[in-house]
Amino acid sequence: GVSKKILVIPGDGIGQEVTAWGKKVLETIAANFNHTFTFDEGIMGHVAIEATGDPLPAETLDKARASDAILFGAIGHAKYDNDPTAKVRPEQGLLKIRKELGLYANLRPIKLFDDLLQASSIKPEILQGADILFFRELTGDVYFGEKQRSEDRATASDLMIYHKYEVERIARKAFEAARTRRKKLCSVDKANVLEASRLWREVVQEIAKEYPDVETEHMFIDNAAMQLIKDPKRFDVVVTGNLFGDILTDEASQIAGSMGMLASASVGDRVGFYEPIHGSAHDIAGKGIANPLASILSAALLLDISFGLKDESQRVIRAVDATLRQGYRTMDIANKHTANDMLLGTDAMGAQVLKNLN
Amino acid sequence: GVSKKILVIPGDGIGQEVTAWGKKVLETIAANFNHTFTFDEGIMGHVAIEATGDPLPAETLDKARASDAILFGAIGHAKYDNDPTAKVRPEQGLLKIRKELGLYANLRPIKLFDDLLQASSIKPEILQGADILFFRELTGDVYFGEKQRSEDRATASDLMIYHKYEVERIARKAFEAARTRRKKLCSVDKANVLEASRLWREVVQEIAKEYPDVETEHMFIDNAAMQLIKDPKRFDVVVTGNLFGDILTDEASQIAGSMGMLASASVGDRVGFYEPIHGSAHDIAGKGIANPLASILSAALLLDISFGLKDESQRVIRAVDATLRQGYRTMDIANKHTANDMLLGTDAMGAQVLKNLN
Ligand SMILES: CC(C)[C@H](C(=O)O)[C@@H](O)C(=O)O
Ligand SMILES: CC(C)[C@H](C(=O)O)[C@@H](O)C(=O)O
Repeated sequence: GVSKKILVIPGDGIGQEVTAWGKKVLETIAANFNHTFTFDEGIMGHVAIEATGDPLPAETLDKARASDAILFGAIGHAKYDNDPTAKVRPEQGLLKIRKELGLYANLRPIKLFDDLLQASSIKPEILQGADILFFRELTGDVYFGEKQRSEDRATASDLMIYHKYEVERIARKAFEAARTRRKKLCSVDKANVLEASRLWREVVQEIAKEYPDVETEHMFIDNAAMQLIKDPKRFDVVVTGNLFGDILTDEASQIAGSMGMLASASVGDRVGFYEPIHGSAHDIAGKGIANPLASILSAALLLDISFGLKDESQRVIRAVDATLRQGYRTMDIANKHTANDMLLGTDAMGAQVLKNLN
Repeated sequence: GVSKKILVIPGDGIGQEVTAWGKKVLETIAANFNHTFTFDEGIMGHVAIEATGDPLPAETLDKARASDAILFGAIGHAKYDNDPTAKVRPEQGLLKIRKELGLYANLRPIKLFDDLLQASSIKPEILQGADILFFRELTGDVYFGEKQRSEDRATASDLMIYHKYEVERIARKAFEAARTRRKKLCSVDKANVLEASRLWREVVQEIAKEYPDVETEHMFIDNAAMQLIKDPKRFDVVVTGNLFGDILTDEASQIAGSMGMLASASVGDRVGFYEPIHGSAHDIAGKGIANPLASILSAALLLDISFGLKDESQRVIRAVDATLRQGYRTMDIANKHTANDMLLGTDAMGAQVLKNLN
């Protein structure tokens, strides 16, 4: 067995409730497969602001750097959302840790579990067989470009900026992944309007030459947002910038039935960072009804990508699949039109997955 | 009857084919209702570059300024899309005319015709009753902020920038419209990350105080892209910036069954500009299979908004509705799963609408 250090950062809102189950799954895998996973915990986001004034305390960052992988929950709080003038914000913690750890590639696999075919607003015949892997650039773009507010506060700006090397490294990762899949890559930009997108397109065109076996297409973001719903099966690997990736992957959650099902892996040159795509969902936080599957599937990604434990990762995915096949559902994936679903809260759902792991 | 000057700008690709029918509908309305519409024609986009080297020749802009309303087709050509280094691009023509004419508010109504309930990838029960009016800001944002390319060409940027007055004027238009509808307004931004969005949110919050009868909510763009598919009925009026509006309205076309059904009105302080949401679609240009209904519905918007001819506008919409009820479909809205549709090309479809107008 392997010996690894995992930092758990539950974060805000439902992050606390769901991450508990991602962690339990990792513990169970360790026990079953004879691995030694040592856990530490860190704070980030609103909870960290409340405790220390800083959305990413130095201590958390130190612990992150010292760990082999990080399991994260969610970030954000309504308090700041309704106060656009707040200087210190939970999200700054997440953006900073992404930047500090060099997590430039955010992988978001979108795939529907068979038993959720009815859970989406999209027609089953459109969804069946859809399987998309998003590569979202995560440490550049308008997220990290200079922000300005005029002295009279009447003008505000953010710089959308890309450097060639940033596009190159994420494009390469995406092309490599396409090679192991259906060998199709779609790069999404807005090159008909934006200079940063024109650079993006130039660089992707250049890198594409190194991958003649991969069929490359370029699509404008507006068209992509449309095609994703119209015909999700046309996509295999999608690579795009930070902002467009943020938008498209949330939209794509509808292909997987619910946001509550989607895990993501942020990787770069060192430690990997795993988190559900969903947010802190303060409207349902503390009610015990959040879907823990995205956190559990984040744990599966962690096992696979950071530790190279493919069997263990598959085991987790199969346990989730089995749980769904047994008819267990959290609220977000329940099918209003059948009576067969057995509705569970967060803990009962997590426990059911654990049971199926054994 | 009224006497009006209309400038027709067919533009590129299928713009030529579909705009012919928008114009014929206006001619028929003029004849039937005893109005005098005088038509002129202008060039813009790829066709204008080919003819003059300029995507928006001064002559076209002069004609636009001298007209009472403009009916536009589409813009763009694959040639430039695949060459990110091209200096002169068709889209520059469209962006320039929007800016020069002060067309800061782009209205995009999204509503499904009853007979197209099956044409969408989204389930009918999710769509039924959806009725959204988008207000997309059209002359600011990252579209018009300063663009830069470093000398070594390895860094590129666009400034995402908003001024308070720009947000104010579009917000007011959106709130006014909400008052005449279901009195709900959703403002979409990314205020948890972007300074320009924080200004946007501050200003909308301020203007909202003048409209206490309108229920206002603020939503992040990633969440909005998801909610739009998950539960389109939750939206009434949506107001957002140029880039987010571009993305969301293309995505929302799936609510109306097809991009080929959606019209838009761009208005500001003077002349109005009417165009389909769809692009030049060079893959089907010249084949006679494009859907002319978005251009025809753009003509309907023109009659209503620029000329105040509500009955005439309704007459056009009813003629489109009747045509769909008769089972006539262009390729993009045909239902693969029923044999009842009668598939028509562009001209036959347009002719059918004309017939139903009489
Ligand atoms: C919380 C927010 C800053 C974040 C983002 O926009 O990146 C989230 O939406 C995500 O997708 O991880
Ligand atoms: C052609 C392009 C510049 C344009 C835009 O992005 O505004 C189009 O997509 C639109 O929505 O009108």
